[in-house]
Amino acid sequence: KLLHHAVGRDLEATLRVFEPFTAAVARIDRAEEAVPTIDRLLRTALDTKRPVYLEIPYDMQLAECRVEGPLNYLAPRSDPQALSQAAERIAKAVNGTSSVGALVGVFVDRNSLQDATEAMLAQSNLPFATTYDQKAGYLEHLPNCVGFWQGAMSPEPVIDATERAELLLTIGMPQTDFNLGFLSTELIEAHLIELSHDHVIIRGELIQGVYLRELLPRLAEQLIPRAGPPAEDTFPFTYTKPLSTVEGKPLTVESMYPQLAHFIQEGDIVTGNTGGYINMSRMRLKRGIVTAGPNNWGSLGAVFPISIGMAFASPGRRVICLDGDGSFQMTGMELSTLLRHSIDFMLVILNNAGYTAERAIHPERDDSYNDVQVWRYHLLPEAFGGPEGSNGFEIHTEGQFAEALNAFKPGRGPCLLNAHLGKMDVAAFNLEMSAKLRH
Amino acid sequence: KLLHHAVGRDLEATLRVFEPFTAAVARIDRAEEAVPTIDRLLRTALDTKRPVYLEIPYDMQLAECRVEGPLNYLAPRSDPQALSQAAERIAKAVNGTSSVGALVGVFVDRNSLQDATEAMLAQSNLPFATTYDQKAGYLEHLPNCVGFWQGAMSPEPVIDATERAELLLTIGMPQTDFNLGFLSTELIEAHLIELSHDHVIIRGELIQGVYLRELLPRLAEQLIPRAGPPAEDTFPFTYTKPLSTVEGKPLTVESMYPQLAHFIQEGDIVTGNTGGYINMSRMRLKRGIVTAGPNNWGSLGAVFPISIGMAFASPGRRVICLDGDGSFQMTGMELSTLLRHSIDFMLVILNNAGYTAERAIHPERDDSYNDVQVWRYHLLPEAFGGPEGSNGFEIHTEGQFAEALNAFKPGRGPCLLNAHLGKMDVAAFNLEMSAKLRH
Repeated sequence: KLLHHAVGRDLEATLRVFEPFTAAVARIDRAEEAVPTIDRLLRTALDTKRPVYLEIPYDMQLAECRVEGPLNYLAPRSDPQALSQAAERIAKAVNGTSSVGALVGVFVDRNSLQDATEAMLAQSNLPFATTYDQKAGYLEHLPNCVGFWQGAMSPEPVIDATERAELLLTIGMPQTDFNLGFLSTELIEAHLIELSHDHVIIRGELIQGVYLRELLPRLAEQLIPRAGPPAEDTFPFTYTKPLSTVEGKPLTVESMYPQLAHFIQEGDIVTGNTGGYINMSRMRLKRGIVTAGPNNWGSLGAVFPISIGMAFASPGRRVICLDGDGSFQMTGMELSTLLRHSIDFMLVILNNAGYTAERAIHPERDDSYNDVQVWRYHLLPEAFGGPEGSNGFEIHTEGQFAEALNAFKPGRGPCLLNAHLGKMDVAAFNLEMSAKLRH
Repeated sequence: KLLHHAVGRDLEATLRVFEPFTAAVARIDRAEEAVPTIDRLLRTALDTKRPVYLEIPYDMQLAECRVEGPLNYLAPRSDPQALSQAAERIAKAVNGTSSVGALVGVFVDRNSLQDATEAMLAQSNLPFATTYDQKAGYLEHLPNCVGFWQGAMSPEPVIDATERAELLLTIGMPQTDFNLGFLSTELIEAHLIELSHDHVIIRGELIQGVYLRELLPRLAEQLIPRAGPPAEDTFPFTYTKPLSTVEGKPLTVESMYPQLAHFIQEGDIVTGNTGGYINMSRMRLKRGIVTAGPNNWGSLGAVFPISIGMAFASPGRRVICLDGDGSFQMTGMELSTLLRHSIDFMLVILNNAGYTAERAIHPERDDSYNDVQVWRYHLLPEAFGGPEGSNGFEIHTEGQFAEALNAFKPGRGPCLLNAHLGKMDVAAFNLEMSAKLRH
């Protein structure tokens, strides 16, 4: 006989489905296995910063088991000698080199090392840039932030200060496709010190068992503070330059992101899905700002639900999510969850009637396959059961966009900005990125 | 370096993810493998009636290969001796027994044997019932159809005519959880002849290599037609009884499905998601009607997109899809596809503000977890870019439901009926089903 919610008679099927993209999978078959199995999975998730998958079968769900106490988790520690040696060698190399740059990556966030990284960079005054897989927006207010780096698509002063430096420190930044600007850059091993989650590589030499968590405070102590004027603001969209909003002018990418850069405040959560994230990555952010994007996987539609999770986890913080129309059409129904719980959340739909990021890859093609159905997005809050006739804004002009931003006040629940943009309205740096993806 | 759209460095990950729930997976690594690999997957899909998964890597997408001609597929054939022997033994058993019943299942549809099955049943006049995993609605107009069988939840005359018969033929009906009424029934091996896709089991004795495709015409020839009056109409919702619609009366399950039974015409496609399918399975259907439901997997949200696929594959046929509100909130955005292509499609949302099928399992519980956000579903066609102010109906009464059904005319694109029903409005047979699921 064949049970429902099962693939034929194969009761291992879902375990095998999850195995390739999790750090561990397990099923509890006997009550006495529950505690050691759950503890093992929690430790694996905490150690690896990757998801784990646990299956609790129907006949185990009400089983009783004895729990001795909460999980007693200690993060793995560095080898003391390797740690001291690595810190000294890195400090010596950095202190002895006049041209040093740094790139900050995703594993800083995964390990909750934002404060330690900020302390080290503020103290040492090393020129640094933020990177794609997770933009460390909370660092961009520092005077030694040279901008956002993404390989060959970066502004010249950013390239000069980082990959062309005599010595480059990468801090928790894996060498991914997207971080390296679609592999447009080859970082030179002889100039490179990579600080990873649990090891360092100094000019090609691997030192195992050195945790970033313990290394950062050592470097903050041992690096000699550098002199130097504040770096030039290389961000194409930034709050350091005055706005010039023209009331009735059609909204464009070039006018929208500077408005957002001013609107976004310290401590906000700012997220974006592919197109929105690419533009947001070039927008200078203020102190304490947390970001999320589609990361190196590049999954369309993922970021809106992720942002909702962040909103629930951070009551009292403003969330601004820049979603594409194509992307929103994959997961947009989650707006219902925000309305149901009346969560303060600003959702900006970049309504360019299709996949503009894809259009820009092959601008010469007849690409109606990149068009999507044009929704009346601003009607959705009402259709999804929100307050009648409110919370949705249809925006065609710079002035309307400014007005909608100003209307966003805590306590009013989610609002949705249907921001009409031209089908081929793409920022200059984004066109370069698209050209790299052509094949 | 780590590529995007890849899990770390594991380029086999997606193949391994798909393997547990497909009949075969493959990746084309060299152009000369393309034809044999694709042919092998097509044959596997056709032979097994299960999905297959093919991966064409980035660097293979423009590779050229030589194709000799279209796939030369011959369905596997029965062993001639086994086929003759099986047909004779079955005919002898059936012809020699006065009380014989039959159950028709999902593999009739999977093998496109609807006409052969109808011919055999019409010719032999065997009393038969349709079953859950795929309701053979196109057979229910036959006078020897005793109703819908689902184990202990079936009406007494249906149980008498099938599982209590001296001999029971199952035709392409696997013994699944849902088919057997949540395993509420044990079919007695000594009374049972199972005609499967590629084998038969006669009173427990397996005969391999007998294909249903070839067996059905033999049985149509060899079974002696039975006398007997038309069976009683046991369907709780049926077009054979007159309607008694009361204009202003609040809409209920008991009044809605009889209206639908009359509205649905020969040749329509009728589909339903869990709750809608359960009720639809008890609704008598007319000649030539094709159905789809969540099958034994029971996946919420799957049937609406499946129905859209059926609509595209069958231009000119009406599609009526009965979706639950909880289910629609999982995949409802696909309504956009219907609007974009202006496909004639009637979508009925059973709006009972939550998971009524689940509520009915534990009616005694404080189960606010079964409530969903109540959407203004009738506003969605406009919000998703359809014609302004049209194509959505909000329905509270029997009269409004009748009016919306009458308004459905070909050439007007999809329409959506937001049918408000009571939170605990469940048909009597459905309450029995829910009780079986209690634990």
